[in-house]
Amino acid sequence: MKIYGDSQSGNCYKVQLVCALLSVDYEWVPVDILSGDQSKHAFLAKNPLGKIPVLELEDGRCISESNAIVNYIAHGTTLLPGDGFEFAKTQQWQFFEQYSHEPYIAVARFIKLYLGLPDSKRAEFEDKKDGGYKALKVMEHQLSQTPFLTGVYPTTADISLFAYTHVADQGGFDLEAYPSILAWLDRVRKLPNFMPMKARV
Amino acid sequence: MKIYGDSQSGNCYKVQLVCALLSVDYEWVPVDILSGDQSKHAFLAKNPLGKIPVLELEDGRCISESNAIVNYIAHGTTLLPGDGFEFAKTQQWQFFEQYSHEPYIAVARFIKLYLGLPDSKRAEFEDKKDGGYKALKVMEHQLSQTPFLTGVYPTTADISLFAYTHVADQGGFDLEAYPSILAWLDRVRKLPNFMPMKARV
Repeated sequence: MKIYGDSQSGNCYKVQLVCALLSVDYEWVPVDILSGDQSKHAFLAKNPLGKIPVLELEDGRCISESNAIVNYIAHGTTLLPGDGFEFAKTQQWQFFEQYSHEPYIAVARFIKLYLGLPDSKRAEFEDKKDGGYKALKVMEHQLSQTPFLTGVYPTTADISLFAYTHVADQGGFDLEAYPSILAWLDRVRKLPNFMPMKARV
Repeated sequence: MKIYGDSQSGNCYKVQLVCALLSVDYEWVPVDILSGDQSKHAFLAKNPLGKIPVLELEDGRCISESNAIVNYIAHGTTLLPGDGFEFAKTQQWQFFEQYSHEPYIAVARFIKLYLGLPDSKRAEFEDKKDGGYKALKVMEHQLSQTPFLTGVYPTTADISLFAYTHVADQGGFDLEAYPSILAWLDRVRKLPNFMPMKARV
C-alpha cells in the first residue's frame, strides 16, 4: 500500500507511527502542501477534499482522514479494542482529537512552524490558546486516572492524540502544568517499535 | 440507557435517529445548552468537555462524541459495515463531518437559529460560507456516484451527515445547486422508521 503525506504533519505521522508499532510495510509518497501538491488533479482524484494523508490500497481504492486510516491499519490488532464499549471510547477520543484538539493545537503549530507566525496570523494564533488548553485539561483529567486514554492498554486513540500533543510546544503550548500528559507521552515513546516524528529540516 | 441532549442539536438528533431506525429504546434527558446546563458539575462528571450528547449506560459508564455514540448503538447491525474497507469509509465520512462540515454548517446554523444572527457574529457567520460549500461539493461528488455515502447501502455515515445537511438552509446554505444531495436527503427520509428532527418551538 501507498501512503501520501508530509512527514511534518501530525495527521500523517499518526499513520507512520501505527505502521511502525505494528511493523506494517508501505510505500511513502511525499506531498508538499506548501507547494499545493494536494490541490492538483491527480491527488484530488484520490481525495476530493484535497487533504493528506491518503492511504491507497493495492487495488487503487483510497481511504482519507487520518484516524479512519489508523483504525483501518490497526483493525484486528490489540491497538483497536474488539469490545464494543472500549472501541466506542477509542473513537470518542479520536473525534475529540479532530474537533476539540487538532483545530487549536495543530493549527497554532502550523501558523508558527510552517508559516513563521506572520503578523497577519497573530490574532488567529492567539485565539487558539483557550481551546488548546481546554483540550489539554480534558486529557490531563483522564490521564491522571488511567495510563492510556481508554484504560490500561494503548489504543489508536493514544496514537491519534500523541501526534500533535508531543509537539504542542511548537504551537506555543506549555505542557509543564500537565504532569499526567508528560508521563503519558513518555509511556507512548517507550512502546515497542516506537518511531519518532522526523525533525523539520 | 439514557441520552443527554438537546433535540435541536444535530449532533443529538444523530443519536435519536439511529435509535429510531434500529428501534432502540432509551430515556431522553433534556440539556438546555443556552442555560449552560452542560457546564454544571453533575454533567461535567459525565463528560469533562461539557458537550452534548452523552450516552449513559445502565452501569453508569458514559460515552460522548455523537459519532462514537451512533457507532456504538449501530454495532453489529447493517448500519455499521463489518467489512474492513467499508467500515473505514464509514469512519472517513464521519471524521470529515466533524472536521470539514459541522464546524461550518452547524456553527452557521447555531449563530442564525440559536443566537438570532447578532451583528457581533455576522463576520463569523459569513466566514463559514466557503468551508460549508466546500463540504457540500465533496458530498455532491460522492452522491452523484453512489446512492449512499459509502456505497449502495445506508450506514451511520449517512446518519451523521444527514443531521446538519438537511437543515443547512437554517444556516443560510442553499442546496439547490446540489441535486445529488437533495435526492440523498429524500432517500434517507424514506428509510424504515425514519424520525424527523423536532421543529424548533
